[in-house]
This record gives sequence, structure tokens and C-alpha cells, in this order.
Amino acid sequence: MFPGATDERGAGDAARDDDSADANFVVVGAPLDVSTTFQPGTRFGPRRIRTFAEPFDDYDSRTHQHFSDLGVVDRGDVHAWDDVSAYLEYLAGTVRDAVWEEAIPLVLGGEHTVSLAGVRAVEPEVFVCLDAHLDLYDAYDGNPLSHAAVTRRILEDVDSVEEVVIFGARTGSELEWERADADDVTVVSPETVAEPSVAVSDVVDLEGRDAYLSVDIDAADPAYAPGTGTTEPFGLEPREMRGIVRAVAPHASGFDVVEVNDRDDGQAAALGGKLLREFVFTKAADGDG
Amino acid sequence: MFPGATDERGAGDAARDDDSADANFVVVGAPLDVSTTFQPGTRFGPRRIRTFAEPFDDYDSRTHQHFSDLGVVDRGDVHAWDDVSAYLEYLAGTVRDAVWEEAIPLVLGGEHTVSLAGVRAVEPEVFVCLDAHLDLYDAYDGNPLSHAAVTRRILEDVDSVEEVVIFGARTGSELEWERADADDVTVVSPETVAEPSVAVSDVVDLEGRDAYLSVDIDAADPAYAPGTGTTEPFGLEPREMRGIVRAVAPHASGFDVVEVNDRDDGQAAALGGKLLREFVFTKAADGDG
Amino acid sequence: MFPGATDERGAGDAARDDDSADANFVVVGAPLDVSTTFQPGTRFGPRRIRTFAEPFDDYDSRTHQHFSDLGVVDRGDVHAWDDVSAYLEYLAGTVRDAVWEEAIPLVLGGEHTVSLAGVRAVEPEVFVCLDAHLDLYDAYDGNPLSHAAVTRRILEDVDSVEEVVIFGARTGSELEWERADADDVTVVSPETVAEPSVAVSDVVDLEGRDAYLSVDIDAADPAYAPGTGTTEPFGLEPREMRGIVRAVAPHASGFDVVEVNDRDDGQAAALGGKLLREFVFTKAADGDG
Amino acid sequence: MFPGATDERGAGDAARDDDSADANFVVVGAPLDVSTTFQPGTRFGPRRIRTFAEPFDDYDSRTHQHFSDLGVVDRGDVHAWDDVSAYLEYLAGTVRDAVWEEAIPLVLGGEHTVSLAGVRAVEPEVFVCLDAHLDLYDAYDGNPLSHAAVTRRILEDVDSVEEVVIFGARTGSELEWERADADDVTVVSPETVAEPSVAVSDVVDLEGRDAYLSVDIDAADPAYAPGTGTTEPFGLEPREMRGIVRAVAPHASGFDVVEVNDRDDGQAAALGGKLLREFVFTKAADGDG
Amino acid sequence: MFPGATDERGAGDAARDDDSADANFVVVGAPLDVSTTFQPGTRFGPRRIRTFAEPFDDYDSRTHQHFSDLGVVDRGDVHAWDDVSAYLEYLAGTVRDAVWEEAIPLVLGGEHTVSLAGVRAVEPEVFVCLDAHLDLYDAYDGNPLSHAAVTRRILEDVDSVEEVVIFGARTGSELEWERADADDVTVVSPETVAEPSVAVSDVVDLEGRDAYLSVDIDAADPAYAPGTGTTEPFGLEPREMRGIVRAVAPHASGFDVVEVNDRDDGQAAALGGKLLREFVFTKAADGDG
Amino acid sequence: MFPGATDERGAGDAARDDDSADANFVVVGAPLDVSTTFQPGTRFGPRRIRTFAEPFDDYDSRTHQHFSDLGVVDRGDVHAWDDVSAYLEYLAGTVRDAVWEEAIPLVLGGEHTVSLAGVRAVEPEVFVCLDAHLDLYDAYDGNPLSHAAVTRRILEDVDSVEEVVIFGARTGSELEWERADADDVTVVSPETVAEPSVAVSDVVDLEGRDAYLSVDIDAADPAYAPGTGTTEPFGLEPREMRGIVRAVAPHASGFDVVEVNDRDDGQAAALGGKLLREFVFTKAADGDG
Ligand SMILES: [Mn+2]
Ligand SMILES: [Mn+2]
Ligand SMILES: [Mn+2]
Ligand SMILES: [Mn+2]
Ligand SMILES: [Mn+2]
Ligand SMILES: [Mn+2]
Ligand SMILES: [Mn+2]
Ligand SMILES: [Mn+2]
Ligand SMILES: [Mn+2]
Ligand SMILES: [Mn+2]
Ligand SMILES: [Mn+2]
Ligand SMILES: [Mn+2]
Repeated sequence: MFPGATDERGAGDAARDDDSADANFVVVGAPLDVSTTFQPGTRFGPRRIRTFAEPFDDYDSRTHQHFSDLGVVDRGDVHAWDDVSAYLEYLAGTVRDAVWEEAIPLVLGGEHTVSLAGVRAVEPEVFVCLDAHLDLYDAYDGNPLSHAAVTRRILEDVDSVEEVVIFGARTGSELEWERADADDVTVVSPETVAEPSVAVSDVVDLEGRDAYLSVDIDAADPAYAPGTGTTEPFGLEPREMRGIVRAVAPHASGFDVVEVNDRDDGQAAALGGKLLREFVFTKAADGDG
Repeated sequence: MFPGATDERGAGDAARDDDSADANFVVVGAPLDVSTTFQPGTRFGPRRIRTFAEPFDDYDSRTHQHFSDLGVVDRGDVHAWDDVSAYLEYLAGTVRDAVWEEAIPLVLGGEHTVSLAGVRAVEPEVFVCLDAHLDLYDAYDGNPLSHAAVTRRILEDVDSVEEVVIFGARTGSELEWERADADDVTVVSPETVAEPSVAVSDVVDLEGRDAYLSVDIDAADPAYAPGTGTTEPFGLEPREMRGIVRAVAPHASGFDVVEVNDRDDGQAAALGGKLLREFVFTKAADGDG
Repeated sequence: MFPGATDERGAGDAARDDDSADANFVVVGAPLDVSTTFQPGTRFGPRRIRTFAEPFDDYDSRTHQHFSDLGVVDRGDVHAWDDVSAYLEYLAGTVRDAVWEEAIPLVLGGEHTVSLAGVRAVEPEVFVCLDAHLDLYDAYDGNPLSHAAVTRRILEDVDSVEEVVIFGARTGSELEWERADADDVTVVSPETVAEPSVAVSDVVDLEGRDAYLSVDIDAADPAYAPGTGTTEPFGLEPREMRGIVRAVAPHASGFDVVEVNDRDDGQAAALGGKLLREFVFTKAADGDG
Repeated sequence: MFPGATDERGAGDAARDDDSADANFVVVGAPLDVSTTFQPGTRFGPRRIRTFAEPFDDYDSRTHQHFSDLGVVDRGDVHAWDDVSAYLEYLAGTVRDAVWEEAIPLVLGGEHTVSLAGVRAVEPEVFVCLDAHLDLYDAYDGNPLSHAAVTRRILEDVDSVEEVVIFGARTGSELEWERADADDVTVVSPETVAEPSVAVSDVVDLEGRDAYLSVDIDAADPAYAPGTGTTEPFGLEPREMRGIVRAVAPHASGFDVVEVNDRDDGQAAALGGKLLREFVFTKAADGDG
Repeated sequence: MFPGATDERGAGDAARDDDSADANFVVVGAPLDVSTTFQPGTRFGPRRIRTFAEPFDDYDSRTHQHFSDLGVVDRGDVHAWDDVSAYLEYLAGTVRDAVWEEAIPLVLGGEHTVSLAGVRAVEPEVFVCLDAHLDLYDAYDGNPLSHAAVTRRILEDVDSVEEVVIFGARTGSELEWERADADDVTVVSPETVAEPSVAVSDVVDLEGRDAYLSVDIDAADPAYAPGTGTTEPFGLEPREMRGIVRAVAPHASGFDVVEVNDRDDGQAAALGGKLLREFVFTKAADGDG
Repeated sequence: MFPGATDERGAGDAARDDDSADANFVVVGAPLDVSTTFQPGTRFGPRRIRTFAEPFDDYDSRTHQHFSDLGVVDRGDVHAWDDVSAYLEYLAGTVRDAVWEEAIPLVLGGEHTVSLAGVRAVEPEVFVCLDAHLDLYDAYDGNPLSHAAVTRRILEDVDSVEEVVIFGARTGSELEWERADADDVTVVSPETVAEPSVAVSDVVDLEGRDAYLSVDIDAADPAYAPGTGTTEPFGLEPREMRGIVRAVAPHASGFDVVEVNDRDDGQAAALGGKLLREFVFTKAADGDG
């Protein structure tokens, strides 16, 4: 159970203000860990994120909200198996249930591949992600459902998606960079993210469009998130990631945090849980407006 | 033994300049580890801090001083037990011994609760701390001596204390934030600390007043101090912490570094030991002036 | 095998462009681990660096090069033994082989002492290093071949070396700082490195001179490289280190990365491997010009 | 959720045979971690035990039963706080609920102190435990509710308890050993347990008496359970522990496994979970007879 | 490179006695890590085993042989990818190359599934394995190529295999145990292995038959091999495993050690490497006779 | 400070019975860590052993003694440096001080090489050790003071030593085994130690002779002591080691425990500390007789 969430919607409803009736969220764990290239362990990501969120205060002083008031329901994990294609379909079904209930899904990965299920369920126009990697392989080691191909899949196979924006990307194959040159992809380097003068709205126009926000924790510099499959130095700082989450959340109908594993002292999981909360607080506050 | 300290005052006295006769310091370990909320292990804090200070050079090039010349005596640990109230009283007695000898106490926690003993012994007018948390609970889980209530205890129960300043705080309960709104509390967010234009003297007037400086290591971003009970992302950078230590030290009659545990690769302990040394070097250099 | 390198020059030759014929590199592991002062394990440095470089993309988008095209040959490790003097001589011979083949040696430490072998083989005019420490002891614990004396040895015992520049140094003994005051040593503090207005060319004139670049991973702040023998807080950020590597590489005929051990979650090794690649990419791109 | 348990009794009931109607079990987590003497972390014991039981097969080939058929309900954790006396009372209430439902409580510690709550609820005549320690202090560091005093408390303060048997004990204070000499205590050394000719029934007559079985995981040799607060070499082997569990289970109305922490690679938790299952399988099979 | 092996057959040939010409071995790493059920990391198995074999003496005093004299060639790893079926076919090809050269293949896993490739290449009549698990699932989570189904696959899909013997098995599903009741499967419990009176030859007649020996490291008690995917307490002791290796080796034409991961302090890898060497020493000594 | 020891002889004297006046012990830490072949970290051995002895009870029920009554003085560590020959001489001097005071030295390694200093100071007739390795190299990697040559050095270079007995040895080079065949060396295999019918007195006649007992912790099976430089499977069980310590202690005038490092969860250190205590308890009890 994500701290502050409930496992039955009823309980949450009773406790929360009527005002936040349109700010309903559903947590789904997706511990897929099949295609991880280097250091495995994303199967423990949902558990780690929930655990390291335990010491966080329920209250958020910026938005004057209690997390436990916001109607977050944790539906537990969708047990993963080896047939990734079938798993994604099943997972998308579970996420779609949340969408049909007019709730915002919050998916806890698991490898990045699970974003494909999230996006299929949400059907956004824009896919925004934070990632060290382009994930624009057409197939990796022959596998089109590899975590390294997920952004390509989303861009090309999900009909609703018109555009992809990747914040923090700093590495990829030559073919991925060529694909990234196309009009439907925008890559914002970590150095650009760090420039105080650059706002998310300068990079992508989200007004009137529906977005899905995916946080691959390896977007962060490895100092802040050593516990991930493929660490890549020279990355984002947590406050930069938070800034992007705050800017995108009001436009987003779905969210995930992925690629957290159990191979560090909790840094990756704590950061992931914090960004999820930041998304929820921002979205809920925006919904009140 | 903290590296560079002696266990008998005599040895240190012989070695140091007469000029620094008023810059005498006493290290006391306070391995209390009872109320830690999430990840325990602060009982190993004093040992970790002493150990990870071993590779540090004795010499400080900024102040042109040798640590081992500054009359630092390490009295070892005050063994902790379960009765926190009795323990704090006993610990305060040990710290008070140092104060009566006109030495500056340097307490190595242990959970943050031990600051209450330090402050009772020093009786400062201002309590300055670096902390991710407000620690302004009236009681946590019914316990008024929880680490999460220590700043409240100090503010309300120690007569000499007029004012509290908390640098780096970024989380708390709603009631804590309300308490923080009162005139006797100043909270400086991590974002404000990071602003180059903001000086400690803009925030609190320490001239002519006696301060106690407490470093809860979780004030740092978890990247710099993963080994602490309750990590909280979006925190301070070590140089920002150092800047505050340098600014406050000349006004401080007592110091502690707390909440270091043994659950990382030494980052928290190394940073804690370094900030303690920075305090001593600054204070000693100031005493020479 | 460093990822993207070959173990036979032939294979590499076949795969690379003729243009890069003058950008040939030889990796040599030097797992010396005898004089490490605090936390040992540098003997595992070469292995760690090679391992944590596995997830890196072959392609570099900044210089439009593939690492595997650049003629990097990995000759494996030169097994270390206790007689440091004899080992350095033997290691220098191996590195000299690379120099005589007009290749650029890339040494993977091992303790910093191995730089002495690298410098003896390369015979540069300027020794540039990134290091938290001055390493200017005449002898440490009576040992003139200690890692803590390596920069002094290089400066005083290698005839070709005229000048030493140390970026990121923040600690040393009083005698080391005095030695650092001489004209043939320049120390650039971490705070100075962080100033955007300060360029490497402001600090040292490398035009027309031959340099050797040594990266002691402890130059980085411990958050970015906890896995090293003697962590020293308040250090460099990875992008600052990268900037120095980029600026020095075009002038350098030898390179090493040292003091990585196995006592973290891969941060030190990943950073070390990344900086080695940055050196190679920059040097190779420069060679094309 | 302990693997194979359900969180609602209904689900379990539906799935199980009518024959096992009298073999109903209730898991309660009791993450108390206040008085741990050396290495803390028992607060993570319930979570670790549940997690490391995940790979175990549902089926037991010795008793031809499926764990998930045996009506085991997991009620989650009873959140612990600092007031141990109050906590034990509350915990005893929760355990007593299970007893009143004619179920067998299975408590997951937490420090050994929680056995006092279990025993108060079950009110057995004999307290059988596996423990490296006598736990017969009258008070430890002045604390009569220390884990090191729990067997004394149970023996002297719980009216129903007539007798205590401690298997595997190999250390204690002089006063504890004196107390152990009394008629109401039997200590069976690890060496005696290892003798094939010694049966549990030789040591204690359990026929017609109600027992409570407590497994302090430190009864095992540290090789088999490094993750516990106070490791004590020369301990029991897992099969010896299993033999005692099998012998006592048919006579026991309550069970706990305590002192597992998170400071190893899962050995302590896996062994703890396995012994809990062994208890359940044996008890359930016995109930069928 | 496995310590004592060579990477070119030539070198090994030169160094060894003519007598051992029929005792030629080929090491192949098979870092498959796709279907691991609980704790992943078998992809690091080959590397771990090679690394932790480094401190072993080349000489074996029991058989009076040097490992480096026995013509062991290490062909490195066969890089694994997601398509397990294709990977096994490719791996079987590599192993078959060794068989056709009349060498004995020594496969380093990787998950247990890789034994299927080894057995396909060797085509033995008897498959002997050490395993905590039956691995007789027809399919696990719908996957017939899961590590949990490997012994079933070998038994039913490899034509040459007439019989399977599993030493140390102590858990399985009900269906697996039923399959184990058939005439072509023999299960020897850990308790039976421990009986000094039971010899391997009592269990299976290997005279005149060709065997393949597979060591799933989880056959060992978790104390001896914590670093494996699914630890199962109450297992074998290393000397018991060694006894089986010694008894089977003279009859075996293929060998593997699998399921070692990187989640312990080297115990699993050291044991795995030692058992591989024991196999080679025994086989080579037998070949001399 | 080893738990139960004092740092001033006076304090200990006051507390102990006159009867034990001839059972005086001096602990000396010898953190040498230069020649460790595989995994370094023995420099942390003395600290680890002292730390993990903290939870042990002061009282020993077998001999009815309190450790703190036995006049054990801890003189701290003799800081190690790179010049092993000089260090051993200095260390021998410190140990000799204890011998001249008619105390029994208890050396905490550090690598096994430090036994040479202990033996030089004690000048025994018989050197008894527990070790996985013969340590009979004449020189290892050219170094006659390597840990792998220590037993050879002791046997051949210390005049008083007539005979060496090695319990638990299971590996060595061919030349070492040849040296072990000579009359002055007895090797007792782990399998022989395990035989209940074999007593130490069957192996070596210690009556009327002065012995020195050295415990290389790698004599234990790696399950019981993973934290050592070169683990070697198929080793001794702790109770077997204890049996040898009990048998030899009455005849021994010196003791050490070596090769403990910090690369496990405390198992090696706890076992080492326990065996040291067993030595002291046995020796002291024997002295009373
Ligand atoms: Mn990604
Ligand atoms: Mn990524
Ligand atoms: Mn605090
Ligand atoms: Mn805090
Ligand atoms: Mn250096
Ligand atoms: Mn350095
Ligand atoms: Mn107990
Ligand atoms: Mn116990
Ligand atoms: Mn298997
Ligand atoms: Mn298995
Ligand atoms: Mn030895
Ligand atoms: Mn040894």
C-alpha cells in the first residue's frame, strides 16, 4: 500500500473533502523485470517505492493538502510473467479500469516497457518522459518490447500519440538519435533543463492537449538514483525533475515512475515516491482551481 | 576517538598555542536510537563519524590550523538506554561538565532527541539547526521526547531559548507548519538557502546572542547522506551546509551532528565529521581574532 | 575488456575509419592496491570500470563517433604485486609499448601511484590531475611511493614534467600546501572550478605542450563516487570534471582514471568509465580536425 | 500478506477442506524495535519474512497439504510505537481476537518482547522457545520489558505459565543462569539438541498441556541467520530447529518467530518463514488426525 | 577467464601432459536471466564464479594435478537475449562444438534453463542434478522454458535421456511430486544424502551409461549459497555436494553449475567454482586411469 | 576496546580475583593489510572483532567466570604501515612487552603475517594454527613476508619453533604440500577434524611444551566466515574450531585471530571474537587449577 493511499475506494472517499472529488488516483504496481539490460531488480520497484515513501509526511505545505485526503487508491501489483506482450495487454486492462472510473492511473514499474500499457489505457496526445535514454530503438536484441524501445513503440504504435518529449536524455544509438531528429520528437538535454530560463512551456505546448508523464528514474544523475538498471552519469538534479513534474501534471491524465530497483540504499525509491506525490499534489491542487 | 582529538586534556593542552586557550572542545558520543521512525541505526552514528573522519588531513588550509592543536578532547560515548528522559538528564550532565570547564561541547548523535540534552547544558538564546524536518511535533506517536518533537521541546521547554531557526526544512505535519508560523520560529527552505544573495545574517541576528548549532544530517539531499533514518529528497548541498556552519560557529557555544546511521557507504558519516571539523576550525580561528 | 574495445588491434583496425588512424588508444589495467590509506579495494577498480561501462551506448552524439570505431585496444591487466617499485617499472614498460606504437595509453587504476608509471612512459611536460588531495607528500608513512606522494614524485622525479595542475584539490598537509605554493604547481579549488567564468585555458597554457591527464575519482564529491579509498566532501560535480577532460584531452598523450574501488553501488566506476570515454571521444574528434 | 494467506477469512474458508476447520491460523505482524541491544532492524522483520517466503511452494510434500488450503489469514501489522507496555497490551488484544475465534495466532516479530503479548493472549501452561539467550533478566538496563527479559516476564508474570523450556540457549548472565537452575526452567544446550538420541518428549512432557512456541531466530547458528540483533556463534542447525517445531506444534496454541532483521541476504527471514510454515503444516496435519 | 583456463586451446595443450589428452574441457558462460522467479541476477553468475575462483590454488592435493595442466579452455560468454528458445538453440550449438572436439563442456549459468542446451548438445542417457527444486513443472506461469520446468523438458524432450536423478530436492508443486513418482525420476532427499550409508551407486546405476551433471547451487543450504534466486532452507552441505560430484564425474560427459547470482558475499560463487574444479579434477584423474 | 577488557591494567587488577593473577591477557590490534591476495579489508579486522563482541555476555557458564574479571587489558592498535618487515619488528616489540609482564598476548589481525610478530615475541616450541591454507610458501609473488608464507617463516626463521600443526588445511601449492610432508609439519584435514574419535592430543603432544595458537578465520567454512580475504569451501564448523581452541589453550602462551575483514554481515568477526573469548576463559580456568 502506498502510504496515505487506501485499498478500498470507500475509505478514501469518506476521509476526503468533496472539493477533491475530481482528483482521484489509482496506484497500480507493475513489477515487470524481463528485458532489463544491465542490473536487474525492477521487479522490486513497486515494493521499494512504497516502502521508502513511509517516512514522508502526509501533509504538503506547498499546496496545503494531505495526501490521504486526495482519494488515492492502491490496487496492489499486477503480477508479471514472461510473456511481455500478454502482460502488457492485461496491465493495460487494469489501468484502463482506472481511466474509465475517471481516475488518474499512477503506475509503479517495473521496467520502462510498462509505460506502453499505461499509454495504451490513457490514450494521450503527448507522451512526456524523463529519461537518460531515448528508448527509440525499433527493437533491442531483436525485441520490440524491450524497455529500450518503449518510447518508439508509444510514438509509433499508439494512435492517439502525436508527439514525444524527452527531458534529460543524454545517450542513445545513432539510429535512435536519427529518429529523434524527426518532428514528432523533442529531446531536451540535461544541460538545457538546468538553464533557469528554459520553461517546459517553451519546449512543448500542452494547452488543450492530454499528456501522459513517465519518469524513468535514470533521468536523475546516478548520485540521486543509483538503484536503477543502467546508470548514466551527467544527469538531472531532483529539483529539475520536480520542476518538470509540476509543469506537466496539470495537463496529464496518466503517470508512471519506472526503472527503480533494489540495488542502492533507497535513494532511487525515495526520489520516485516523492515525484509521484508531487504529481498527485500538483494535479489535485490544479483540479481544485 | 575522533581523529585528532585526545582522550586526556593534558596531551592536547601541551600541543596547542596559548592563543587558542579559549577554543577548547569536548566530543561526547550519544548513541541514542529509540524513537527513530523509519530506518534505525543511529546508535552506530558516533562510531561511524569517528571512523570516516580518519582519512581527513589534520591541517585546514583555509584557517591555517591543525585540528590536533585545537584542544579537542573526546570523552567517548555516553551509553544509551531505553529510558529516554533519564538518559537525556544524564547526558545533559556530561555535556554540562564540558560547559563548566568553558569548553564547547560537540555531541555526536544518535537520534535528534539528544540535542535537547545539549541545549539544556548550553542554555543558548538561539537554537539554529539544519534539518529536513521541522521537528515541531508536540508529541509523535504520543511521545514528547521523539526525535520528531525535539525542536518543539527545545523551543518551549528550555527557558533560555528565545528563537529557533531551521535551515533546509522541507516537510512537516500541518500542525508543525502552523507552529512554525509563530514569531519565534524561522524556516529557511532549501531553495532559499541555495540563493547566493541570502546570508545567514539576513535571516537571524546572532550578534551578541548565544547560539547552539545542530546539524541533522538529513538536511542534506539523500545523495549526500543516504545513511540516515528518514531521507527526504530535494535537500541541501554540502557546501550550503558548510556555509551555514561557518556563519553560525562564531556565535555558537554548542554543536551537534545527529541522525547519522550505518546504512550507506559512509557518505553521511563523512559529511557529518567534516561539518564538525568545519565548526571547530571556524570557532577556533574566530577565537584567535 | 572495456566495452567497445578489442583485444586484438587487427579487429579494431578493420572496423574503423581511416581518418581516425592517429586516434589509437590502449587500455591497461593496473590493479595496484598496496598503499591505500583508508578503505582498500582499488585492486577491483579495473574490473569495476569495465563492468559498469557495459550499459553505455557505443555511439556519442556530441562528436558523432562510435567508440568501437576508434581503435581502442584493451590489453587486460598488469597483475600487481607487493614490490611497488618493481611493479611500476614493469607497468611503465607496458605503457611505453603503447606509446611507441603511437597510441594513447589509458590506464585503469588501482591506486593513484600507478600514474607514476603512466607519466614515466608518456614523458609529458604538464601533469594535469583531478584530485581531492594534493598528493604532494614527500613520503607518507615513510613511503615515497604512496598514493599520497604520487604528484610529488611525478613533479620532482620525472624529468620531462615542468608543471603540475591539480583541479578540485581541497585538502592536504601543511607541508603539501607549502609545496603547492611553488611556481610549478597550480591548485584550482572546487569552488573555482564551479565558477562558469573560469576556463581551463585561464589556468594553464597547454598550447604546444604535451600533457598527461589523471583522474583521481575522489575529486568528485562523495555523492557521485562513494566507492573510493578516502572520500572527501565538498568536491566536484561530474559535469565540471567532464569540462576539464574535454579541455585537456586535445593536448594529452596519456590518461588514467584511478582510485575506484568496489565499495559503492557502481557510482564511482560508472563515472570513471564515462570520463575515460569522454577523453577518447574528444581526443579522437580532435585528431580528425 | 504472508504468501498463501488471505486477508479476508471468507476467501480462505471457501478454498479449504472442511476437515481442517479446526486448523485456522491468524498472522499478525508486530514490528517492535525499541530495546534491541546491538543491531536494530527488527521493525523490518514482518516484511522480510513475508517477502522471503514468496518463492516457497504452496504444497508440502511431507504432509500432502497446500498452505493456501489451511485457512491462514494475515491481518497485517500492528504498528508499533515507543510505549512498549501500552503496545504489548494493544497487541495482546489483537492476538486475543484470534484466540477467541479459535484460531492459532502466528506472530511475526519484531523484538522478542512481543512474545509476551502472544503468551498473554494464549495463556499456555508451557512456554517453549528456541533462543541463543536465556532472556531471563529481571530487567535489562533497568527495563523489565527488554527483549532480554521476556522469558522471565512470561514465566513470572503470566499466571497460566507453569514451565519454560529453552532450546539452543548458550549464553546468559550469571543471574540468568541461576534463575535457569530453578525447577520451572529447562535449558537444552545446542550440543544436546544435536544428539540424535534426545527427543523433545524426553525434555518436557507436553501431553495434555497447552504450549506456546516462540522461535527467536538467533537460536540458529549465525551462518543460517546472520540478520538478527545479537548473533551468537555455536548455534542450532535449521533441521534441528525444524525437529523441535514438528515435535511441539501438535501441543501448541500459539506461535511466533522473532528477532529477524534486514541486515543479511535473506537467510534469517527465509528460515523464519520456513519454520512458520512447518508449524502450520504440522499443526494442520495433526488437527486432521 | 576461469582461473587456470586458457582462451586458446594451443596454450593449454603445450602445457599439459600427453596422458591427459582425453581430459579436455571447455568452459562456456551462459548468463541467461529471464525467468528467474524471485531474486534476479543470474546474468552475473559466470562473472561471479570466475572471480571468486581466483584465490583457489592451481594444485589439487587429492588427485595430484594442476588445474592449468588439464586443458581447460574458456570460450567466454554466449551473450543472452530475450528469446529463450532461440538462445538455447544457439547455446546448444556452442556447447555441441565442444562435444564434437571430444571435450567436456562446462557451462556456467545463468538460470537453470541453460541446462537444456547443455543436455541437447551432450545427449546423455542420465541427467543427474543437485537441486532444491524438482523443476518438473510442465510450464511455469505458462512458460515451458522456465527454469522451474527445465528438468521436465530434459526428461521429456531430449530423446537420449532415459532417466533423471535429483539430489537434494525438498520442494515442488503437487503435480511435480506426482511426476516425480514415475519410474524415470528418482528424488533423493537432503536427509537421505546426509546418511553416510547411502552411496550414489545405490541410487542410480551409471555403469556403462553416459551422464550429464547439473549443479543448481540452491541445492545447498542457504547458509552456504545465499546468492541464488530462490533460497530454500534445510539443504545440502558442501561436502555432500562434493561427494555426489566425485561419484558422478567419471560417468559424465557434460557439466554445469547454475543459478549463482551476485546477491551475497561470494559464498554461492565460491562454492560453484569449487564444485566445477572438483568435477574437472575427478574426471581428469579418472581419464588417466 | 575489546568488550570486558580495560585500557589500564590497574582497573582490571582491582576487579579480579587474586587466584587469576597468572591469567593476565593483553589485546593488541594489528591491522596489517598489505599482502592480502584477493579481497582486502583485514585492516578493519581489529575494529570488527571488537564491535561484534559487544553483544556477548560477560559471563561464561561453562567455566563460571566473568570475562571482565580475568585481567584482560586492551592496548589498542599498533598502526600499520607499508614496510612490513619494520612493522613486524615494531609489533613484536609491543607483544614482547606483554610477554615480559607475564601476560598472554592476544593479537587481533590484520593479515596472517602478523602471527610472525606474535610468535617472535612468545618464542613457543609448537605453532598450532587453524587455517584453510598451508601458508608454507617460501615466498608468494616474490614476497617472503606474504600472509601465504607466514607458517613457513615461523617454522624456519623462529629458532624456538620445533613443530607446526595446521588444523583444517585443505589447499596449497604442490611445493607447499611437499614441505608439509616433512616431519616438523602436521596437517589435519577438515574431514579428520570432524571425526569424533580424533583428539588434538592424538595429533600433537603438547604436554610440557609451550604453544602459540593462531586462528586464521578462513579455516571455517565460508558459511560461517564469509568476511575473509580468500574463502575456501569445505571448511571447519565453529564447534570444531572451538574444540581445538579448548584443547590447545592450556598449553599456549600466545594467541591470535587473523584474516577477519569487513566484507560480510559480521559472521567472521563474531566467530573470531567468540574464539578469542573461549581461549581466555579456558586458559584462565586452567590457570586456576
Ligand atoms: Mn527508459
Ligand atoms: Mn533510461
Ligand atoms: Mn531532526
Ligand atoms: Mn530530520
Ligand atoms: Mn590522488
Ligand atoms: Mn585523492
Ligand atoms: Mn530472545
Ligand atoms: Mn536471542
Ligand atoms: Mn533448478
Ligand atoms: Mn533450484
Ligand atoms: Mn593463513
Ligand atoms: Mn588462510
